[in-house]
Amino acid sequence: MRWSGGALRILDQRALPARERMLVCRRVAHVVGAIRSMAVRGAPLLGVTAAYGMVLAAREARGCRETFEQLAERLRAARPTAVNLGWAVDRVLRAIGGVPDPSAALREARTIHREDAELCDRIGEAGARLIRRGAGVMTICNTGALATAGIGTAFAAFVKARARQPTVYALETRPRLQGARLTMWELRKAGLAGVLVCDSAAAALMRQGRIDLVITGADRIAANGDTANKIGTYMLALLAKAHRIPFYVAAPYSTFDPRARTGADIPIEHRDPSEVLAPVGLAGRDIRAVNPAFDVTPARLIRGFVTERGLLRPPFRAEAQS
Amino acid sequence: MRWSGGALRILDQRALPARERMLVCRRVAHVVGAIRSMAVRGAPLLGVTAAYGMVLAAREARGCRETFEQLAERLRAARPTAVNLGWAVDRVLRAIGGVPDPSAALREARTIHREDAELCDRIGEAGARLIRRGAGVMTICNTGALATAGIGTAFAAFVKARARQPTVYALETRPRLQGARLTMWELRKAGLAGVLVCDSAAAALMRQGRIDLVITGADRIAANGDTANKIGTYMLALLAKAHRIPFYVAAPYSTFDPRARTGADIPIEHRDPSEVLAPVGLAGRDIRAVNPAFDVTPARLIRGFVTERGLLRPPFRAEAQS
Repeated sequence: MRWSGGALRILDQRALPARERMLVCRRVAHVVGAIRSMAVRGAPLLGVTAAYGMVLAAREARGCRETFEQLAERLRAARPTAVNLGWAVDRVLRAIGGVPDPSAALREARTIHREDAELCDRIGEAGARLIRRGAGVMTICNTGALATAGIGTAFAAFVKARARQPTVYALETRPRLQGARLTMWELRKAGLAGVLVCDSAAAALMRQGRIDLVITGADRIAANGDTANKIGTYMLALLAKAHRIPFYVAAPYSTFDPRARTGADIPIEHRDPSEVLAPVGLAGRDIRAVNPAFDVTPARLIRGFVTERGLLRPPFRAEAQS
Repeated sequence: MRWSGGALRILDQRALPARERMLVCRRVAHVVGAIRSMAVRGAPLLGVTAAYGMVLAAREARGCRETFEQLAERLRAARPTAVNLGWAVDRVLRAIGGVPDPSAALREARTIHREDAELCDRIGEAGARLIRRGAGVMTICNTGALATAGIGTAFAAFVKARARQPTVYALETRPRLQGARLTMWELRKAGLAGVLVCDSAAAALMRQGRIDLVITGADRIAANGDTANKIGTYMLALLAKAHRIPFYVAAPYSTFDPRARTGADIPIEHRDPSEVLAPVGLAGRDIRAVNPAFDVTPARLIRGFVTERGLLRPPFRAEAQS
């Protein structure tokens, strides 16, 4: 993702790994469309995207604060679950005092962008400490460079632990297959050993003793530690508990939403059932399907949160890093 | 599936629901190929298939007992996990005293075929007693008419409980998508309410309180009750336990294998990783994937076994049917 020539240029993740195609967003509507269609995804990267979207909003508002606020609201509401959209919109608004000043908005967006890359390094260092030599680590969805402005969140831990040669078991992550399409591609690029696993086989692999650790990303973390993330994360946390495998969530500190008291306060996006049917050749068939994009993992199933401030546990005091 | 004109005619399940195509098997090699490629599948139906395969074996043997035994062995070994293949081969061998007599083999195969249909009805009646009015029932893979010679095993319970209007939540069952392709198709044909669910969303639906009961089929049940079935079944059993949802296995009594003391004695088939990649458009990519076709659910996670003899629990005395 980069800002150049007065436009936001986004790698269209829907076409990966078959094609690397760039989208050029010159208006807020383009950015909202890219977010809704999941051309751009990954909670941290959604924040950076919304920040740059605010530059476009400031330009489109032509000095009108009301228009600016309406455009900001459209960015904030593009998808409901990840807190990062609202967080980034609010941060740009605060930085520029609500005045639709494109230059000032761009300065703040670039700061957010740069900071996210730095956060990834720190999250990766904290997460890598959890990974022993030759460990089997299971993860879901995509939490790497495609999901952030840096080297990732959970994925950053794998990168930073590379010398200890972990094997990353990537769940394919139906329905959108981010694990199969994106994480397996990034693992290869990073020179890490990756094994693709159908979501339904996670339990069997755990029982075989191949998994030492589970690390996932997060879209929003409630004040009590309940965590919304990709559908299947709650399953993974339950299965990890049943096999006494530690389960960690890696995310920047901004993913904590103090306004959500528990997971019940986090809105869960339900997407079109066609997303379930199309990737497996059943598009257009009259099949009733449910497609919750996220689920909530209760805090009691989470061993700790890997953040740029180190390893945290409820009630979220930074712990001594071992 | 039917025997006519000296050949076994099989509905090719790989093409469903897009096309209804029949395979004509005139030699044992055709039958073995159809079983290996999963053109025909479903543990009970594999037994019926192998029984008819023994008719072809008797014909091909041209009176030679050694050839007959070799052909029988090829049928028995076509796939390793489901006990039904070996069970049916042994039963035909016993019935005809090991003599390669095609007419006698055909009589026994027809008996097995007819019996399987009757078993399905009785399994369905026993299973239906577990389903209350308006219940949400979750299942995996396909256990209906396509998997048996009758109305199914777990699926038979849904059919027999139709008047109580259950909603069947069918896991899509990656990688071969039997839930999405076959069970959803059969639910519609049977006039039952079906909802397709990605395997990874099972836990989230349970947490929402939508699932009252889980019923699956079985490929082989060890003497202690450990049960091999489609990959993902063990996951479902663990998730059901975590949500205090009763988990049942429906299968004919012949699925119990007294020679397998525990699940550790059941061979688990690992299939080609291309099966994981091809259905989601990633065929030919150099992606390392695991593809265990089955997993083993420990007996302690299974509330009971729904068989033609009623509801059984370890150590497998028939219980009073409520």
